[in-house]
Amino acid sequence: WDDAYLTNLANHSLDSVVERIRTADKVGLFTTEEEGPDAVARALVKRRIDYFTAYVCENLGARNERVTRGALDEIAAQEFDPLNVMILVRAGDAPDRPRDASVRSLFGNPDETFVQSKPKHGLLTVAEVRAVALAQMALGPRSVVWDVGAGSGSVSVEAALLAPVGQVFAIEQDAEDAELIRENAERFGAANVTPVIGRAPEVWAELADPDAVFMEGSGREIVRLAELAFARLKPGGRLVCSIASIEALHEVRSGLVALTSDVNVWMLNVSRGTDQLQRLRFDALNPAFLIAATKR
Amino acid sequence: WDDAYLTNLANHSLDSVVERIRTADKVGLFTTEEEGPDAVARALVKRRIDYFTAYVCENLGARNERVTRGALDEIAAQEFDPLNVMILVRAGDAPDRPRDASVRSLFGNPDETFVQSKPKHGLLTVAEVRAVALAQMALGPRSVVWDVGAGSGSVSVEAALLAPVGQVFAIEQDAEDAELIRENAERFGAANVTPVIGRAPEVWAELADPDAVFMEGSGREIVRLAELAFARLKPGGRLVCSIASIEALHEVRSGLVALTSDVNVWMLNVSRGTDQLQRLRFDALNPAFLIAATKR
Amino acid sequence: WDDAYLTNLANHSLDSVVERIRTADKVGLFTTEEEGPDAVARALVKRRIDYFTAYVCENLGARNERVTRGALDEIAAQEFDPLNVMILVRAGDAPDRPRDASVRSLFGNPDETFVQSKPKHGLLTVAEVRAVALAQMALGPRSVVWDVGAGSGSVSVEAALLAPVGQVFAIEQDAEDAELIRENAERFGAANVTPVIGRAPEVWAELADPDAVFMEGSGREIVRLAELAFARLKPGGRLVCSIASIEALHEVRSGLVALTSDVNVWMLNVSRGTDQLQRLRFDALNPAFLIAATKR
Amino acid sequence: WDDAYLTNLANHSLDSVVERIRTADKVGLFTTEEEGPDAVARALVKRRIDYFTAYVCENLGARNERVTRGALDEIAAQEFDPLNVMILVRAGDAPDRPRDASVRSLFGNPDETFVQSKPKHGLLTVAEVRAVALAQMALGPRSVVWDVGAGSGSVSVEAALLAPVGQVFAIEQDAEDAELIRENAERFGAANVTPVIGRAPEVWAELADPDAVFMEGSGREIVRLAELAFARLKPGGRLVCSIASIEALHEVRSGLVALTSDVNVWMLNVSRGTDQLQRLRFDALNPAFLIAATKR
Repeated sequence: WDDAYLTNLANHSLDSVVERIRTADKVGLFTTEEEGPDAVARALVKRRIDYFTAYVCENLGARNERVTRGALDEIAAQEFDPLNVMILVRAGDAPDRPRDASVRSLFGNPDETFVQSKPKHGLLTVAEVRAVALAQMALGPRSVVWDVGAGSGSVSVEAALLAPVGQVFAIEQDAEDAELIRENAERFGAANVTPVIGRAPEVWAELADPDAVFMEGSGREIVRLAELAFARLKPGGRLVCSIASIEALHEVRSGLVALTSDVNVWMLNVSRGTDQLQRLRFDALNPAFLIAATKR
Repeated sequence: WDDAYLTNLANHSLDSVVERIRTADKVGLFTTEEEGPDAVARALVKRRIDYFTAYVCENLGARNERVTRGALDEIAAQEFDPLNVMILVRAGDAPDRPRDASVRSLFGNPDETFVQSKPKHGLLTVAEVRAVALAQMALGPRSVVWDVGAGSGSVSVEAALLAPVGQVFAIEQDAEDAELIRENAERFGAANVTPVIGRAPEVWAELADPDAVFMEGSGREIVRLAELAFARLKPGGRLVCSIASIEALHEVRSGLVALTSDVNVWMLNVSRGTDQLQRLRFDALNPAFLIAATKR
Repeated sequence: WDDAYLTNLANHSLDSVVERIRTADKVGLFTTEEEGPDAVARALVKRRIDYFTAYVCENLGARNERVTRGALDEIAAQEFDPLNVMILVRAGDAPDRPRDASVRSLFGNPDETFVQSKPKHGLLTVAEVRAVALAQMALGPRSVVWDVGAGSGSVSVEAALLAPVGQVFAIEQDAEDAELIRENAERFGAANVTPVIGRAPEVWAELADPDAVFMEGSGREIVRLAELAFARLKPGGRLVCSIASIEALHEVRSGLVALTSDVNVWMLNVSRGTDQLQRLRFDALNPAFLIAATKR
Repeated sequence: WDDAYLTNLANHSLDSVVERIRTADKVGLFTTEEEGPDAVARALVKRRIDYFTAYVCENLGARNERVTRGALDEIAAQEFDPLNVMILVRAGDAPDRPRDASVRSLFGNPDETFVQSKPKHGLLTVAEVRAVALAQMALGPRSVVWDVGAGSGSVSVEAALLAPVGQVFAIEQDAEDAELIRENAERFGAANVTPVIGRAPEVWAELADPDAVFMEGSGREIVRLAELAFARLKPGGRLVCSIASIEALHEVRSGLVALTSDVNVWMLNVSRGTDQLQRLRFDALNPAFLIAATKR
């Protein structure tokens, strides 16, 4: 047992365990009746952690002792007696990340990587602004994150990649968007994203206090939501808002300045290069404003 | 032994082990004669991983069996017999990240968080541009990174945080800057940054092929270095250049377009909000150009 | 004869005379056989200088002496004996400028004020950039201007308004665009715009040396044209180029730096406010680069 | 008397006359006792209109008839009997503009062309923004302009050049700035700038209603002043505000939107090229916001 990760599903949630498996070399885990080796294998494959060889050891020491060896997708399709030990051994050339070519980075992935509801496309926080916003959210591996008005979930998904053993609540009142969020989380192997369907702030009541909150908006509502979310932040937590209108910029900032002395604002004018007849021009994206506030 | 990380220093480098300890709940590790419990404790404290209670078990089963319990800084100051087992138990309220207040995020930390050589200050890739550049570097936990012309090491340090079990080579010909790099890596607890003092590309000869390369410049040299570094990239690897001059932008892009069809360019105009008499104005940073290329 | 402008069409071109009439209070002018009072009245009305009462005095002192009083459009429709004196008296409330509401300013008029060939719309130098470009062209009232690749003539027309007794050559190889130029010149009452149909630089041969040259482009040709046009500039003259590609920016600038030490460059990132639900957002225009060079 | 400008100082102010002389070929003018030929010559020289040969005809037809010929600076230094006729003949190579090399253009002249009070330098509306603001002021030759909070007068001076027979009131409460305004008006030969020392809006009471108003600011006061100035605008007149703070942008715009449906907003991010080791970089100026409103 050398450089191994050992755990017991009786005491730890499958979700938290799966992310630790991602970078481990060897894993030993006691499965449960509810979450047997096949369930573990499915959860791993779903997140594209498919580079382990699995050994399932049933009834060790008993007469019906049996060891099954297989790739994870093979194990996922089989049934096992309860109370096994499952051992995973990393393949020599295993990558650290999902192999889906579209998923390039932990954050700032190209907008088109995400499934989007087309008519709202223009409202999306674009990749470059998302990268800066996520930097300001200051996530740690275990952060609890609220993405308020998550839309298609691009911020939620990348926050989840940056906080692999944390929890990201993608709060969205539009049930169709919630479906997009699930699809994007699946595509990026971000199992720690939980879509929460309902209106803010009512649906916040049952959520754990966040280490970081992201929201986007330009109307009157964001002002109220920003202050309410700030109140729920853990000490040291960060609220980051992406804003397009001057009025919301002023109002949200004023509201936050009254609550903390640590408020910062950015304007980002991003242009993307395009090739026209082998010459480089720039296409401008609309200006974006970011506000970040720290709770003391 | 439930949800534990087990490893053996006889087979694994202290550096790679330490980063895995950071987020573990319990750790069991066999130490070696060269790297005993005190050395491990020092390495952890140096990276500000100071939230474990340590148990050192010497000569288990022998007459001179002894178990020592202590905080890591206490263990760091003691001497032990060789061949121990060291057990670490995470404190209930342990944070995921260094407690140094200045270190906020895995990336995009404020420029002033880094120790800098003042006269060169203007050359630094600013925080917002760094966040986008690191997004484009598409780092995974085990990435090998070259930061060519690392300066004070801000990109190196944040790359190291994003690739905690990877390796970052901060290549810099100025030995004084190498000292800054060490200081910044220390400040951020980024033990996987290795300063490499010498001229590019000569000093690259001995380095492992990179998954990602970052370089910054505006003169003629960056053109040559970008192409040479691209040649060394692993397949699928990413080269990201931060450039200030129009000429270098054109030349580096032309060089890369000849090598791969996946070249993208950005211009970032960032302004930071400032408060003047309770009113919000903006201070503009100079325009920055980024180029990113993927090796097929 | 108090505060009057007196002139004689036998010695002065109708074009040059008409612009001086625009701001005069009283005008006395000797007409010619070719350009009688009706021709003068038509030329004035065409430029929307329609706020004078005209008196045409035929055969003064002779038996068939006759004085006709009328608005300019009335005079324009009549016939007169040759060799008259024509007197114009400004109406008390006459404006200084054409009354067409769409024509607001001497320069920087909204893009939609100009008739445009739709498919090329994106190539137009936008109003805000045009204002800065015209500032850099440093026009005086008598300037000779070349607008190379004039397109729909927006720069030509505004240059003509700024140089009311100068001459603007709107050089364009596309004959359909030449028609747009005429239409826009007509709309703005800019009679001193002369469309020149043909290829640059061949068609330049017959043109007077310019005080100011404007050109727009991004391909290889603008480099050659910029240098050739600079050679034709009068001493002290100004060349201004609006450029979209990085390559042309570099090449044109390099070419001009070799010819004069007075070369300046700008990048303009303009955003226009839009009202969305009574909140102010910004729509970004693409970045534009300007180069201006002075001939010593 | 061919292509001549004739006028009589008994009926017309010297100021309005001088600007018409600037572009005339020949001028005949009746002087008065108060403003004799020497005063006219001095006024012309002061505006750098020094390219005429003058003939002063005293007591024409009387015994003491005398004709004096000379350059304007010679005439300026002599004394004459009252009631003369003064004749000016333009030199063949006369320029249209002042010969002072620093004065390049009617508008958008480099910031350093203006004498400035150093500590306020940062508040100046920079050349590029000034060009766009003046375009939006939509000046005609006879426009009445208020420059509210004129500072060193850069907007006033250029407005005066664009409205050569109009009147520009440079309103400034700081008497030292009024001196700078005079100096800049002198330097640019803009005689139709009148410094008005005092507080806005009190000092506006005696001023003629404006065709165009410019003001700059970021505090609370600009909101009130913008609305008051808008009320004083002539129908069709234009108010243009240059604003740095988000709050003033919102407040001024809200106030104006309530008064007229024709309100437009711009954000200008200007960068100026700099040469570093023969490579082109950009220095960013701070973002500037412009608001323009038309009175219906």
